[in-house]
Amino acid sequence: MKRIAIDMDEVIADANERFAAWYQRDHGIVFAPEQLSTTRFTDLLPEEHKYLINEYVYHDDFFKDLTVIKDSQKVIGELYKKYEIFITTAAMEFPNSFLPKLQWMKDHFPYITWKNIVYCGDKSIINADYLIDDNVGHFKRFIGQGILFTAPHNVNVEWDVRVNGWKEVADMLL
Amino acid sequence: MKRIAIDMDEVIADANERFAAWYQRDHGIVFAPEQLSTTRFTDLLPEEHKYLINEYVYHDDFFKDLTVIKDSQKVIGELYKKYEIFITTAAMEFPNSFLPKLQWMKDHFPYITWKNIVYCGDKSIINADYLIDDNVGHFKRFIGQGILFTAPHNVNVEWDVRVNGWKEVADMLL
Repeated sequence: MKRIAIDMDEVIADANERFAAWYQRDHGIVFAPEQLSTTRFTDLLPEEHKYLINEYVYHDDFFKDLTVIKDSQKVIGELYKKYEIFITTAAMEFPNSFLPKLQWMKDHFPYITWKNIVYCGDKSIINADYLIDDNVGHFKRFIGQGILFTAPHNVNVEWDVRVNGWKEVADMLL
Repeated sequence: MKRIAIDMDEVIADANERFAAWYQRDHGIVFAPEQLSTTRFTDLLPEEHKYLINEYVYHDDFFKDLTVIKDSQKVIGELYKKYEIFITTAAMEFPNSFLPKLQWMKDHFPYITWKNIVYCGDKSIINADYLIDDNVGHFKRFIGQGILFTAPHNVNVEWDVRVNGWKEVADMLL
């Protein structure tokens, strides 16, 4: 059975939406959906507010109850019948995310248990056939095929295998 | 550069000693070193106390300040010059261990950063040349060579590559 490793943030969990929501809460500024979907969130902020990114991402509540990325539950549910599924997230950088991420998985993907959830930093340690991730940096030393999941920060990044959303993952792997 | 994955509990961190210390604290019973080093701790307990294992291991303080396994700092320091080192621990089963384990690594192996620390469940997800672990179950689907690190619970387990302590790891890999 082939194995798919799947990243969390911007692939199944919408962290970008959280950034936008907290920034709106704190500064009353609303960005247009087209801006949010095509531009790295940091790049939308004025210079004097860029520090907020770090403040938000290390906040205890940042990773709680993030919105599930569209179609991911349906497609991963189908992939689960044909592949071994592992969730592989670079959580080690954010100790505040450890418990919320585990709870989030229980809430939204309860059939993927702790045995198949991996917190790491350098994803070259992952042994899988495919890695679906929004960060092309993780593919360089990855043993399998990296599949770039389109996210605002990577729309202009070059990579030969790219998917725009989970329906395209289904077309490719089901 | 070849890569070594190294487990934590009973390989670099002495969880067994913690079980014995807490049991002594709670019930005043002291086991002989020979008993502790050759017998699974659960098997030393009377039937009515076996439940304590689960109570201890899920306690918030269980993984704090564990004793470093003899010679591991010296030998891993040497291995680090010749190999990529990753720490791979099945921490996902014990959410109470997430923060203490990260702190423990900072305290005792500060040059091994979050990028090279992995919390997982099923270690077949690990892509490395060697896995030094006290649990032979992790070797069955592991992509590289499993090296069984002797611990009380595995003295009678069959595995072709075994090391009795870190000096034997040095002899094998340095």
